[in-house]
Amino acid sequence: MLKMACCGSCVCSRCCCRDGEIRTPEELTILGETREDEDEILPRKDYESLDYDRCINEPYVEVLEGLDNKKAKKYEAVKWILVFAIGVSTGLIGVFVDFFVHLFTQVKFKLVGSSVEECSENGCLALSLLELLAFNMAFVFIASVLVLIEPVAAGSGIPEIKSYLNGVKIPGIVRLRTFVCKAVGVLFAVAGGLFVGKEGPMIHSGAIVGAGLSQFQSITFKKIHFQFPYFRSDRDKRDFVSAGAAAGVAAAFGAPIGGTLFSLEEGCSFWNQALTWKVLFCSMSATFTLNFFRSGINYSKWGSFQLPGLLNFGEFKCLDGDKQCHLWTAVDLAFFVLMGLVGGLLGALFNCVNKRLAKYRMRNVHPKAKFIRVLESLLVCMVTTVVVFMASMTLGECRDLTSPVDNSTAVPMSANEDVNSTIRQFFCTNKTYNDMATLFFNPQEIAIYQLFHQDATFSPVTLSLFFVLYFLLSCWTYGVSVPSGLFVPSLLCGASLGRLVANVLKMNLGMHIYSGTFALIGAAAFLGGVVRMTISLTVILIESTNEITYGLPIMITLMVAKWTGDFFNKGIYDIHIHLRGVPLLEWETEVEMDKLTASDIMEPNLTYVYPHTRVQSLVSILRTTVYHAFPVVTENRDNEKEFMKGNILISNNIRFKKTSVLTRAGEQRRRCQSMKSYPSSELRNVCDERPGTEPADEGRDILQQMLERRHVPYPNLYPDQSPSEEWSMEERFRPLTFHGLILRSQLVNLLIRGVCYTENQSSASQPRLSYAEMTEDYPRFPDIHDLDLALLNPRMIVDVTPYMNPSPYTVSPNTHVSQVFNLFRTMGLRHLPVVNAVGEIVGIITRHNLTHEYLMAKLRQHYITI
Amino acid sequence: MLKMACCGSCVCSRCCCRDGEIRTPEELTILGETREDEDEILPRKDYESLDYDRCINEPYVEVLEGLDNKKAKKYEAVKWILVFAIGVSTGLIGVFVDFFVHLFTQVKFKLVGSSVEECSENGCLALSLLELLAFNMAFVFIASVLVLIEPVAAGSGIPEIKSYLNGVKIPGIVRLRTFVCKAVGVLFAVAGGLFVGKEGPMIHSGAIVGAGLSQFQSITFKKIHFQFPYFRSDRDKRDFVSAGAAAGVAAAFGAPIGGTLFSLEEGCSFWNQALTWKVLFCSMSATFTLNFFRSGINYSKWGSFQLPGLLNFGEFKCLDGDKQCHLWTAVDLAFFVLMGLVGGLLGALFNCVNKRLAKYRMRNVHPKAKFIRVLESLLVCMVTTVVVFMASMTLGECRDLTSPVDNSTAVPMSANEDVNSTIRQFFCTNKTYNDMATLFFNPQEIAIYQLFHQDATFSPVTLSLFFVLYFLLSCWTYGVSVPSGLFVPSLLCGASLGRLVANVLKMNLGMHIYSGTFALIGAAAFLGGVVRMTISLTVILIESTNEITYGLPIMITLMVAKWTGDFFNKGIYDIHIHLRGVPLLEWETEVEMDKLTASDIMEPNLTYVYPHTRVQSLVSILRTTVYHAFPVVTENRDNEKEFMKGNILISNNIRFKKTSVLTRAGEQRRRCQSMKSYPSSELRNVCDERPGTEPADEGRDILQQMLERRHVPYPNLYPDQSPSEEWSMEERFRPLTFHGLILRSQLVNLLIRGVCYTENQSSASQPRLSYAEMTEDYPRFPDIHDLDLALLNPRMIVDVTPYMNPSPYTVSPNTHVSQVFNLFRTMGLRHLPVVNAVGEIVGIITRHNLTHEYLMAKLRQHYITI
Repeated sequence: MLKMACCGSCVCSRCCCRDGEIRTPEELTILGETREDEDEILPRKDYESLDYDRCINEPYVEVLEGLDNKKAKKYEAVKWILVFAIGVSTGLIGVFVDFFVHLFTQVKFKLVGSSVEECSENGCLALSLLELLAFNMAFVFIASVLVLIEPVAAGSGIPEIKSYLNGVKIPGIVRLRTFVCKAVGVLFAVAGGLFVGKEGPMIHSGAIVGAGLSQFQSITFKKIHFQFPYFRSDRDKRDFVSAGAAAGVAAAFGAPIGGTLFSLEEGCSFWNQALTWKVLFCSMSATFTLNFFRSGINYSKWGSFQLPGLLNFGEFKCLDGDKQCHLWTAVDLAFFVLMGLVGGLLGALFNCVNKRLAKYRMRNVHPKAKFIRVLESLLVCMVTTVVVFMASMTLGECRDLTSPVDNSTAVPMSANEDVNSTIRQFFCTNKTYNDMATLFFNPQEIAIYQLFHQDATFSPVTLSLFFVLYFLLSCWTYGVSVPSGLFVPSLLCGASLGRLVANVLKMNLGMHIYSGTFALIGAAAFLGGVVRMTISLTVILIESTNEITYGLPIMITLMVAKWTGDFFNKGIYDIHIHLRGVPLLEWETEVEMDKLTASDIMEPNLTYVYPHTRVQSLVSILRTTVYHAFPVVTENRDNEKEFMKGNILISNNIRFKKTSVLTRAGEQRRRCQSMKSYPSSELRNVCDERPGTEPADEGRDILQQMLERRHVPYPNLYPDQSPSEEWSMEERFRPLTFHGLILRSQLVNLLIRGVCYTENQSSASQPRLSYAEMTEDYPRFPDIHDLDLALLNPRMIVDVTPYMNPSPYTVSPNTHVSQVFNLFRTMGLRHLPVVNAVGEIVGIITRHNLTHEYLMAKLRQHYITI
Repeated sequence: MLKMACCGSCVCSRCCCRDGEIRTPEELTILGETREDEDEILPRKDYESLDYDRCINEPYVEVLEGLDNKKAKKYEAVKWILVFAIGVSTGLIGVFVDFFVHLFTQVKFKLVGSSVEECSENGCLALSLLELLAFNMAFVFIASVLVLIEPVAAGSGIPEIKSYLNGVKIPGIVRLRTFVCKAVGVLFAVAGGLFVGKEGPMIHSGAIVGAGLSQFQSITFKKIHFQFPYFRSDRDKRDFVSAGAAAGVAAAFGAPIGGTLFSLEEGCSFWNQALTWKVLFCSMSATFTLNFFRSGINYSKWGSFQLPGLLNFGEFKCLDGDKQCHLWTAVDLAFFVLMGLVGGLLGALFNCVNKRLAKYRMRNVHPKAKFIRVLESLLVCMVTTVVVFMASMTLGECRDLTSPVDNSTAVPMSANEDVNSTIRQFFCTNKTYNDMATLFFNPQEIAIYQLFHQDATFSPVTLSLFFVLYFLLSCWTYGVSVPSGLFVPSLLCGASLGRLVANVLKMNLGMHIYSGTFALIGAAAFLGGVVRMTISLTVILIESTNEITYGLPIMITLMVAKWTGDFFNKGIYDIHIHLRGVPLLEWETEVEMDKLTASDIMEPNLTYVYPHTRVQSLVSILRTTVYHAFPVVTENRDNEKEFMKGNILISNNIRFKKTSVLTRAGEQRRRCQSMKSYPSSELRNVCDERPGTEPADEGRDILQQMLERRHVPYPNLYPDQSPSEEWSMEERFRPLTFHGLILRSQLVNLLIRGVCYTENQSSASQPRLSYAEMTEDYPRFPDIHDLDLALLNPRMIVDVTPYMNPSPYTVSPNTHVSQVFNLFRTMGLRHLPVVNAVGEIVGIITRHNLTHEYLMAKLRQHYITI
């Protein structure tokens, strides 16, 4: 059944590079398949997860006990002040970036423009080109060097923020250094004439502001440290990051509602009214801060609000006199659907080409010396500059300024005046203008504005050429190591296409349409085809146009574009997330996945700790494993048999389903049997009844001894037991009653702070840590390898029960995958223990067990075994 | 600590009737308090919950097995078609309601208006009044009779929809009859000149359309029944109901994004991208269907889109010539904050008065004969009509048509022409108009439009009088038994207030402001003060004005209004929900509640079934209890002791916290001890060691025997055991291993369909039910009392394991309340079993255990015991 479905979709996959499902080597080994060459050599990291669940352990309960309604209200007030501050700061960043981009671009175009106008008479155009090149390459060089300092500042930042909100920790993503490199870098990248936008980086910057302001401390500037640790947890930080990201969108597009929806769409699976209300307030603050300052700076009208976002689509409206004019009619919808289709196709092509480029870069550019990346940026910059210059000089057409249709209207619109002030007349006589230069020799926002609102036409040839050049160059640019947004280039590409359609319909078919609407729909179609965002993009575009009646056409176009594009590949952000191997969780599992249950996908090999464990065992466990959480268990050897006895009911003709009580031993047996049919050396040793015994050398130091134990399934935990090499499989997978979950960081913290007691004391004598001490090192907890072993007495005992999470959410082994997934995704979990009907832990589920690839592999295995 | 917080808030509560926390009699008994008189006599119902969790039992797994990607895609396509159909239908309902309201109102005002104009000369005004009264009372009579047919159609419907989306089942809320009564009723109520809006009923109508269309069957029209049972579950139905509600908002206000946010804010705690996208599409369809038809009907411009919603605020814009004009500036924000404050205060007053009225009605009107309600409606109608008429005739002022400020502008705006066509000149000379009549003698939408856009002024006296009259009458009207929205009256009230402020600022202080903005902000402030909605209301108002720049002022006003109002009481919808005793769940618990754990709030007295139970036991359980779900358990007498043995670790100096393994017996003992100090006859018998034995009479019929067993804690289940009167407490609360949850409806279904086997057969011989058979009777499952006992062999055995939910979400007893609440609320659960560390069920948590009142009572108890 699966094969048929797969084949059905394979047919269409040949037309473009469809995403192959990428599997881990282990899964491929299980399936007896070999990995495709091209994917294998991509470097991959293992990402950590963030933990959005609250761990209510004893230190936290102490905080709770001291908390009354008054304090709770204080925290609430602090949150409101914080979101306001985040909004205002994000708005100010927007003002800062915009101001300098504006300044640099103006200087550049003024100098070069006048040089061109002079040289068009003197024939010294090469000089003008050199001048432009010098400007652009200097700017891009700065941007590129900034990214060298902090590589995570490259690109738009949306994939990173999306991953963060999804629950994946990407190192350095919300650090101050990243912020500086991103904000300053994008300024120079845009000023340098690259085909990049400043919207994505704005979103990233906003998110960093959100993460930073809420912590009341700075790791870079150690002096900044307030005694207010209440938001120092992944859970609280996420709220502020989503507020910041929303503020970024709001500032970039003047779209506060769109921003709020963006952070909801990308991140928070749990809709919380109070949080959303704060996010919306934050977005509003950002928009209006930006609006206030920009209106003040640009128009010297302090106190009025006229420039809502960095990107401004201008006002779409019919001239007052024109009764025939409609922004759109029902008939136009058919064209919009077609444009959505084309936009989806082109977007898929864009993504496909960009994916290949990105893969090429990961293989050939990234492993090499870092300055190679700077050279690539400079190369892109040079090519872009030359193309822009040559196209403007040679390929433009001189067009009449007055529109052939609307010249009857007498009243000159103020908007129209704006439009006409930014046209370029290179080589053209007084009443005409150079259409190609008007598009290329202006900031991108103005080019978009021209395409939306210039009543005079652009020639079809110009528009087609412009589209092709822009498509190729912006595709090449996205992925170069400069901060680079993708929204504005995509909009510009699409708008030129839409304008082309409008021109054809209007001139050649004589239809009565509003060109601006078609340009807008074209922009939406292409952007939708590239990024595949849905709700938030619709709302962002509606808000940017400030015209609610565009709702339906924009939505239909985006829908068609998304569906068309999804036929071939994923959205560009998802592609880049995927290429980095980030284990992103989708919204839902496919219905088919419900054929699997928690026991099918869980990780059954557990490393656990006892409630009271010797220091030496803890160190050994921490040093020899990479797990981030350990179940706290007690052994319960007789329990299984007892339970079975209790369960076999008195009357013997009832067969109650025994399988509902899954045991670790049984599960291990089942897995070993099904695995033995596949060749896998790694897996086999787990299944072997007796692993090779190791020589126990008493003379070596503690560390060495500890490290030696790495292959012993159960390191020597307290209480003292003989090492378990002689254990039978039944013994090794004996029942373990689950009591809680403790994190690696918590264990390391306990060891470092010497929280332990000696054997002949009671555990009550163990020192107690406060909540502030437990969270002091957030977010960068010390590593076990930094621990000085000489300070520790390996025979001391640690009581972990006050610090573990005593009541994490758990699932039963026969829970179906959709339920497991919903719980995990919605609650933002990091570890989900699987506990059977008698309270024994039988496995653990993490993010990696729920990724689409892993589930697909397991489903395939499921089909093979049945 | 709690007392202090309570006292702090009590001080302010004296100024207005603050919501007293209403407790159940049982809680009050526990606390030794007596219930306030006024609350006690309010009639209350016990509402059922809806179940939004998926029950993956064997019939469902069968469906799953037959499901491949192709079929899944088919269902997805059906969903898209459905949401489109829901959107279009809701839009058409809007068109229908609007068309007839328009028609009736036009006829009425034309006849009465001309009669007034005639009579103002002849002095026969009493005749005109009679004419108006006849019209209005006839219309209101029809509306009121319709509500008699289906009482749930009364009011705005928003409280009902909010409850439904929150997970509470209110009988009849999404039925066809309700729909007809609501849609037709609101038409006549509005046409009858009552101060009610049609927006709330539109939302309710949309929700019913959503619920109805998705079921592919009709209970009223039995012939409509398609073989497509896949959306016949609470979970799927909810999705369509939220889409329908969103479409209703979208149609009412022309606000598709606002509608989507409304259904998110009120309902879905789980943000699902795919669903939200469908909801948005549904809203868009509704808006544009309505827009298409209304533009076509009203302007005969088929194919263009000019009238987005039923309620239309018109375009706010400065005249082109006026360079000084701003819609608002930063300075105005201070006034907006003040207006928000006033709006919040007035809203709180409105709610307070309305709450008292509602209580009065529940006590004195509702228990009486139904026709009394009709009489009340007619009385309200009569008073309203007389007030409207008298005020228009006697209290209006004649004002100049041309505005004193803007008369310099030469170009007459087309919008202005619209405005001027609806003024009323009663008794006024040619160039002047009667300002009171203009507001009162027009449909409410037009009065709002006048207040927003009429450049000529209204006299301050008129505005004040209008506000007071409107406030009182609309407050009286909301709650009368006609379908009645609250949005439009509130907007109109607030707009008159805002316009008053604008007049004072403009005329008396000479400030340079835009009156329309102040009217809008006033409307927002009052509406916000009454309904206390936040995100969705902001977005709805922004969309209705079609002016993104109003975002910040509207948001700030609403925020201030909400905070001010919340200081005194709840929003009007919450008040009405509360008065009905609906167990609504809030968004989050208060932080303080985390002092409680699951074991503190769970219900420890369980009625359970075994995996294999005799028919007679099942019937007895079903007949003698009212629970909607029963845990499926096996007994495990030895388990507890064994576990404890296993848990006591080998070394004797370790004290692992035993309390983490809560047992039912221990819990019961603890509770009995703490309860014995309070007088409660109901609770004591559970705590008594030995209940009185009952005579077992063999001669009576089966039903009688079954009913006899109602006081036996454990009815005679299979396997045959002696009745348990002799059991000790330890025995009665012996450990029960939890295996799953079965619903009452499922059990009844099994019994009705004869799913059972005889003692000497194997359980495999039991007939199997398919998914379609299990869901056939949704949503009205047969009652156990409809079951013909003669058809059942009481000795047969039912194997419930294939039909139970084998893996519901569970929590451990020491989970803190916030975690329990989040799980319950987010996953939309109905029953949440509490399972201890060894897999024994120790209690169950339902919606009632999580309501604010219950938690507060438990918290108080917690403070008393410590």
